[in-house]
Amino acid sequence: MTEENILERLKRRVAVPRGSRIIVGIGDDCAIFRPRGGREDLLFTTDLLIEGVHFERATHAPAVVGRKALVRGLSDIAAMGGDPLFCLLSLGLPEWAGRGWVERFYNGLLKCAKEAGVILAGGDLARTDRVMCDIVVAGSVPKGRALRRDGAKPGEAIYISGRLGGSALGLATKRGRAWQRHRRPEARLALGRYLREKLKATAAMDLSDGLSLDLRRLCLASNVSAEIEAPPTFPGATLEQALHGGEDYELLFTVRPGTRVPARFQNLQLSRIGVIRRGSAGRVVLNGRPLAPLGYDHFRGS
Amino acid sequence: MTEENILERLKRRVAVPRGSRIIVGIGDDCAIFRPRGGREDLLFTTDLLIEGVHFERATHAPAVVGRKALVRGLSDIAAMGGDPLFCLLSLGLPEWAGRGWVERFYNGLLKCAKEAGVILAGGDLARTDRVMCDIVVAGSVPKGRALRRDGAKPGEAIYISGRLGGSALGLATKRGRAWQRHRRPEARLALGRYLREKLKATAAMDLSDGLSLDLRRLCLASNVSAEIEAPPTFPGATLEQALHGGEDYELLFTVRPGTRVPARFQNLQLSRIGVIRRGSAGRVVLNGRPLAPLGYDHFRGS
Repeated sequence: MTEENILERLKRRVAVPRGSRIIVGIGDDCAIFRPRGGREDLLFTTDLLIEGVHFERATHAPAVVGRKALVRGLSDIAAMGGDPLFCLLSLGLPEWAGRGWVERFYNGLLKCAKEAGVILAGGDLARTDRVMCDIVVAGSVPKGRALRRDGAKPGEAIYISGRLGGSALGLATKRGRAWQRHRRPEARLALGRYLREKLKATAAMDLSDGLSLDLRRLCLASNVSAEIEAPPTFPGATLEQALHGGEDYELLFTVRPGTRVPARFQNLQLSRIGVIRRGSAGRVVLNGRPLAPLGYDHFRGS
Repeated sequence: MTEENILERLKRRVAVPRGSRIIVGIGDDCAIFRPRGGREDLLFTTDLLIEGVHFERATHAPAVVGRKALVRGLSDIAAMGGDPLFCLLSLGLPEWAGRGWVERFYNGLLKCAKEAGVILAGGDLARTDRVMCDIVVAGSVPKGRALRRDGAKPGEAIYISGRLGGSALGLATKRGRAWQRHRRPEARLALGRYLREKLKATAAMDLSDGLSLDLRRLCLASNVSAEIEAPPTFPGATLEQALHGGEDYELLFTVRPGTRVPARFQNLQLSRIGVIRRGSAGRVVLNGRPLAPLGYDHFRGS
């Protein structure tokens, strides 16, 4: 049982009826809902952040946890080129997380929310064994304009933002800029809007589970394959970390042939790493050899 | 630290700016968001359902858990008089929950979703120690028409649907209709719409944490007090269970003086239990004596 086959089975079971206001359901970074009579589509994403799975109490201060919970959701909004609007937070708290911890957790979350222009509009609370956050973030895009995973076409160029593997390196070494990167990721909101408005990206998603797995997902959704070369690596990170490491929260996107993509957007490197091809859906080839999707899957092996 | 004081502190910290599209934020059954240019308001609620807290693996079949996860969210939509639209589910699964368990869990959830006309549009998955569900349900109401907690005025009559204490009785005895009631609660969606459209209820909420605590919350939100008599009890339940027991998922509502409320709505009893008064906000008086808010609080005592 892997995440992928749970999701595949679910997608087959959940029929979205014709004429539904759900424009995109299970399987993209966000669900897309079209309000009646409006000019915008609404985006919705949920992301878990669990002690012992996504972070450790010993190494993540409460404000870091609060911030990261929200950034994970914001990154999905960024991936679709959206503007974040509001969030809801379900929070499970163990006994050791007293008033001070909770206060600092919300400090981190609310500071990040303020910077992103997001209002905390609700949620739920419960007593749990470990800290458990589930963030819901809602965003908007002009009607029909969301960047989706399923728009990539053969011949289009594949790009990523930033340099990969920093979060995996940080998790391994717990030192330096890579550790900072792991603990304080950024949601590429301005870049997402730029991809939608200016570059007219044809597909996009955020890199949360590793390039090898996430690019495969984009290719599966678009029914295409991909040929890539090695992506730029975070200083000190190995190629393995850059290819398979999770939680970089950079954006992966495709553009039509001939699109002029600048080398940088607001100080963030944009790198062409390959091209979309016809052929076996989901297949990713690195320097001529198949790349196994070894990115992070919560359920692999069970 | 109680749920109430965490929420009170948060509400003070989260300023919803004037002109925001968040019409109601933290503190009601759902957040209310107003899409641009539309004729409807959208409702959003999140609800946790956690193994060992809200249910036990030994006594709750996977389909029962899946259904209950969704009903908790649907009940909040019902409380605001909304029509449910779609849901997202974040699901944490321990190793013991294999393919068969997951399949039956989704059977229960998707059957309930179909009956309510709700589409499962996305979510998240993670490996956890215990089963952990966080459901997000979105719904809609005509613009400005949501039933809120803060609309009750002195002189208005207080009603509840059904008979209370069944869920608490079932949890204690694990037998008979009360146990069925605990495991398979119903969301009062049709009643919620009826309260909004026909009875023009002035305030409403669902009874998830016990009448004593939930009525206090309604009174606090409306800045009023309440005088009640004993509510109808579920067959076999004690008055204590009816006053303080959680998870009945009946609706509590207020109507203007002179409103003709039928004795039944679709076979569900509607009972007048008291009247809204001026006076100390949040105070609830039962047969002339103050009623302590002993309903369920996850954090009380810690």
